[in-house]
Amino acid sequence: MENYRHILAAVDLAPGEDPVTGRAAALARQYGARLSLLHVVEYVPPLDLAYDPVVPMGVDIENQLMDRARAELEKRLAWVGVEGTQTHVEAGSPKREIVRFAREHEVDLIVVGTHGRHGLSLLLGATANGVLHHAPCDVLAVRIPEEAGDG
Amino acid sequence: MENYRHILAAVDLAPGEDPVTGRAAALARQYGARLSLLHVVEYVPPLDLAYDPVVPMGVDIENQLMDRARAELEKRLAWVGVEGTQTHVEAGSPKREIVRFAREHEVDLIVVGTHGRHGLSLLLGATANGVLHHAPCDVLAVRIPEEAGDG
Repeated sequence: MENYRHILAAVDLAPGEDPVTGRAAALARQYGARLSLLHVVEYVPPLDLAYDPVVPMGVDIENQLMDRARAELEKRLAWVGVEGTQTHVEAGSPKREIVRFAREHEVDLIVVGTHGRHGLSLLLGATANGVLHHAPCDVLAVRIPEEAGDG
Repeated sequence: MENYRHILAAVDLAPGEDPVTGRAAALARQYGARLSLLHVVEYVPPLDLAYDPVVPMGVDIENQLMDRARAELEKRLAWVGVEGTQTHVEAGSPKREIVRFAREHEVDLIVVGTHGRHGLSLLLGATANGVLHHAPCDVLAVRIPEEAGDG
């Protein structure tokens, strides 16, 4: 049984504790694995381009969200404690981007939260579900306690 | 981030390598956690009781399958290498029994295979899917390579 070599934490950035990053970091330390933190800013297309075609509001908001996500991921580096940890922010469909990142970077373990912004009624959010069905590697679904993650 | 204390391997007993037990054992060693191996013999009710009510064939086959499963799990103890590992065989619905065992024994990580006897067209089998949606704890979905597990 080979040790995991590249662990990807699919970070949600919800307020409160972040057990996904915590668990991924603990495993990376245990296994001496590389650690990557990825946050995906969900792409929301402008609802009505016809009324406001001049100001590219959607793009601007997306860029702001990406900048904020980069800053949030950088903060995590302080307590992650895994040398060489890299942070990545993408925009698009979270499950697609997570799976694509995993394929392109030879990730062998993806860590996702099972109580994210989507699907509060399900223990398993839409993102975690999609990742689980399409991942090219092992997936650890970490339960996020009810207190955390809801803001 | 607390270490895992009780890891449950939901063992499939398909021929070939057993990455579920292997991965669960490796994690138990890393974390100094208890390890339990559970196999669930799926309960298949007799199809037509009216025609053969005297011979309880279903029960007999079920008992034989459970005995065989116990022997298979015992074999794994030889290479698992985690002191105090316990083996359990249940009959019923795999996802229900796995989740019930986890609740009753304070399991904090369930390890399941994502390519079992069910749903070869899906990467994630019905059992793994059910466990993921109902588990009271973290779940590690281990990909079983195509070569293994098909018998």
